[in-house]
Amino acid sequence: MKMSLDCIPCFVRQAADAVKMSALSDENQKSLMQEVLKSMDDVDLNQTPPAAAQMIHRRLRELLLTDDPYRESKDRQNEMAAALIPEIRKYIALSSDPLVMAVRYAITGNIIDLGAKNKIGYGEIYEELQNAPLQPILGDIEAFKKSVLQAKTILYLADNAGEIFFDRLLIEQLSDVKITMAVRGAPVINDATISDAQAAGIDEIADIIDNGSDAPGTILEDCNDKFRRIFNESDMVIAKGQGNFESLSDEPREIFFLFKTKCPVISRHSGFCLGSYVATHRLRGNYVSEEKAL
Amino acid sequence: MKMSLDCIPCFVRQAADAVKMSALSDENQKSLMQEVLKSMDDVDLNQTPPAAAQMIHRRLRELLLTDDPYRESKDRQNEMAAALIPEIRKYIALSSDPLVMAVRYAITGNIIDLGAKNKIGYGEIYEELQNAPLQPILGDIEAFKKSVLQAKTILYLADNAGEIFFDRLLIEQLSDVKITMAVRGAPVINDATISDAQAAGIDEIADIIDNGSDAPGTILEDCNDKFRRIFNESDMVIAKGQGNFESLSDEPREIFFLFKTKCPVISRHSGFCLGSYVATHRLRGNYVSEEKAL
Repeated sequence: MKMSLDCIPCFVRQAADAVKMSALSDENQKSLMQEVLKSMDDVDLNQTPPAAAQMIHRRLRELLLTDDPYRESKDRQNEMAAALIPEIRKYIALSSDPLVMAVRYAITGNIIDLGAKNKIGYGEIYEELQNAPLQPILGDIEAFKKSVLQAKTILYLADNAGEIFFDRLLIEQLSDVKITMAVRGAPVINDATISDAQAAGIDEIADIIDNGSDAPGTILEDCNDKFRRIFNESDMVIAKGQGNFESLSDEPREIFFLFKTKCPVISRHSGFCLGSYVATHRLRGNYVSEEKAL
Repeated sequence: MKMSLDCIPCFVRQAADAVKMSALSDENQKSLMQEVLKSMDDVDLNQTPPAAAQMIHRRLRELLLTDDPYRESKDRQNEMAAALIPEIRKYIALSSDPLVMAVRYAITGNIIDLGAKNKIGYGEIYEELQNAPLQPILGDIEAFKKSVLQAKTILYLADNAGEIFFDRLLIEQLSDVKITMAVRGAPVINDATISDAQAAGIDEIADIIDNGSDAPGTILEDCNDKFRRIFNESDMVIAKGQGNFESLSDEPREIFFLFKTKCPVISRHSGFCLGSYVATHRLRGNYVSEEKAL
């Protein structure tokens, strides 16, 4: 999907958040922000949001003289998620449909997204977790279940640090399948990289690959050959989060998107109300909502 | 007060809102936004927020080829407020302390602020009005009441369109005093100008002057002589809204500020929690909170 005018203030807010994480003086932070704004002049605003964000965050890292301004935040998010997981795992095991319940919690984990918001606290996650078991999953969860049953190989595109612990719970439910999890090739915002996948112990239950790209989404032409081969050859592709949806929503192959609609731009493009839990795929050119489900 | 790094995304959001109000194509809106971002390079980010916003909105109006991109929004806000006022007036008259109740509603009106938020709907105003009678007024409402009783001349600095109808209800309670209401000298965001003051019928109960400036606040050195003279000579100055607080909070003369804290930057600077109804003035260098009140 093409970015919207409304993505621009969001990019600027992301940049301000990253700049505030630095140890620079107030005055230096402001002049660095002015550099970021100036650099946005070269960014093509008719790309997908992750493609534009990739450029902005590259410039931001250059200016901040760091490869990974969000490393500390990601570590905190991983710790927070790690502490929550054992309880949720028990709850999933006791539910009448553990696969669907695990999908629900994987979507809950998608609120840990510093691209969409500037802070995620324990309180907010706790509240979301309280509501999670009751959330209807919009889209086409039946097609998702059917595809899981038929697939022999699944590629799972991770989204953020912290959230990746919730993805692990879903992967645990995808039994008797060869699963590969792909993470970003280099740090960008709080998106998960190899070390976050390892922190979540994904290597115990799936193969981990990196996609070779530093975009906060999956821009296929920017990904490495290995990733693209697995993307094309896997029976099923599960893509987590808004960034993966934004960058892959126009791809011809079937992809199951799991995300929470956290901004009006995504809500408009996907056709799901703000705040929805979504498990959808494309059928005859449209994303399947419950109304349209066959 | 000096602007914060967090003001920058807010300025960019304001600009995007204004650009979206235009009839330009999606592509032209985006390239216009890039022009706005580029122009922010010249803006001194160590000024007050209204001083920086003044520069950005001037550039925006030049690029949009209009003197007043918000005129339609302001008309809608005035209509919405006009419809609400008769009921509120009755409610104020019946309350045990009409002056304090009118202060409360004047602060309620301060949510009609397109500087702080991109849309204000009827639902949101309705909800705020339901809660208004129960809102504690933080700061020093006793000093405000005392000053009203002692003053013979009051200068009332208006803030936004729509909101100005609520200000009228407060002015109606300031009896036996010569009142002058000052509005902005030219359109900026949804700030009130002469025509909004007239729409609210302020001319029936007070003198109206314009301050000669197009800043979304009161930058004294940018205001005309008449305004400055009345500002200096009035027994009491009442300043509505965040913009007037941001630009006048360091002035030496006593000013009573009435506003709702709608952003973390103002909350930090004023010392009042986000969402507070505030009536404060400066005493011994600090803004008076209830705890500090004498």
